[in-house]
Amino acid sequence: MQSETAAIIIIGNEILSGKTQDININYIANQLSNLGVALREVRVIPDEQQMIISVVNQLRNIYDYVFTTGGIGPTHDDITSESVAKAFNDEYTLNQKALEQMQEFMKRNCREYKDTYTRMAYMPKSAIMLLNRETGAPGFKIENVFVMAGVPFIMQAMFDEAKKFIKPAPAIISKSIDTYLSESAIAEDFKNLQYKYPSIEMGSYPYKDEDNKWGTKLSLRGNQVDIIDKALEELAEILNKLNDPCKN
Amino acid sequence: MQSETAAIIIIGNEILSGKTQDININYIANQLSNLGVALREVRVIPDEQQMIISVVNQLRNIYDYVFTTGGIGPTHDDITSESVAKAFNDEYTLNQKALEQMQEFMKRNCREYKDTYTRMAYMPKSAIMLLNRETGAPGFKIENVFVMAGVPFIMQAMFDEAKKFIKPAPAIISKSIDTYLSESAIAEDFKNLQYKYPSIEMGSYPYKDEDNKWGTKLSLRGNQVDIIDKALEELAEILNKLNDPCKN
Repeated sequence: MQSETAAIIIIGNEILSGKTQDININYIANQLSNLGVALREVRVIPDEQQMIISVVNQLRNIYDYVFTTGGIGPTHDDITSESVAKAFNDEYTLNQKALEQMQEFMKRNCREYKDTYTRMAYMPKSAIMLLNRETGAPGFKIENVFVMAGVPFIMQAMFDEAKKFIKPAPAIISKSIDTYLSESAIAEDFKNLQYKYPSIEMGSYPYKDEDNKWGTKLSLRGNQVDIIDKALEELAEILNKLNDPCKN
Repeated sequence: MQSETAAIIIIGNEILSGKTQDININYIANQLSNLGVALREVRVIPDEQQMIISVVNQLRNIYDYVFTTGGIGPTHDDITSESVAKAFNDEYTLNQKALEQMQEFMKRNCREYKDTYTRMAYMPKSAIMLLNRETGAPGFKIENVFVMAGVPFIMQAMFDEAKKFIKPAPAIISKSIDTYLSESAIAEDFKNLQYKYPSIEMGSYPYKDEDNKWGTKLSLRGNQVDIIDKALEELAEILNKLNDPCKN
């Protein structure tokens, strides 16, 4: 499966402490699948400058796109923007356009502009602002790195802006069959099917259904729908032969 | 905050594709907090041997404990155990005790033992088995690396076994105050409080409550409860001074 590649960096002590259940990985992962971009790696790291610099610099050299979430608010623990500027050896400076946009946003929403907001208009000098229709304070893009908020609905607004910089490609399609056969029962045939279709990523995932009965989800993933459909048809035949009380 | 440290490696194409919302990170993160272990980093990586070997070897040399989830089932895409054996330059071999345990488990549960199960009794030669009371097929521990299933309730059973190898330490305590003040309004005072209490990790997290009203959670984290309580008291005073319609 030839695709552009991406990584996510979740910058967040609140995720590492267990206080917050992350939902940004899953959102971005699904969005990237639809855009035909293969998410290859995720890192969750603390709000620490050296760690952020090191991970941003590692990943931006490996992957086509890097998305960060978290640490761009107005408080002392929000150090992502400055760290990313350092990673790029760029000046960390007030973006006049971002400042004006925040001021306009506050005015439009009948809210008073406070000086402490201004910190959120700082970014690397060569960055391009990512609009935030939700709360005004922007994210930014620098080269192939997209810096976004950690609060999910704000991140999602910024991702809508980030999307405009991603080259459209055929979506990565995922189809699956559920079976009550165990992973073990299907293992041999499923392996052979994988060998036959190397361009498809095949996975099997056991689960318990609402009646507490074990099932297995057999998943086929790739960007050529005709090949996936062909393999899926063969998989259905295999399950029939194994005398499966098939679910769907 | 001096603690033992840990990392998690989530091995799972199903997380990277967006098909599955991970809940293992949050579970392990909370468990580690209770055990007084600081989770420092999480990686989500694909089911690929070279990637697994490389990441396991990086992280086991940095952190006191490494926990992996996923890829230890019976199908072709389950390559974690063999990859971990390679990471340790250890023989990947049938663990007789694991095999017997699986066979007993099946017998006890009136299920037929199938040959394809046997793959799940393979592990590095020097590994110690981690019991799995839920489905029989074990995880394992090798040095400071704990290899567990990806299915959450099975992983949790294995983590109960892994816990026995973790030195107990004072739990990492987290206390917080919610306020309707914005992050910007509290930023300056909160920063000063952080400087005053360097041993406490302070973070602020904006959220919307059930009435769609913006709130900010101010969180204090550390392993000395008396110092946290003292800082928390000061924080409450600060919020009162800022004329806060305090929530709790």
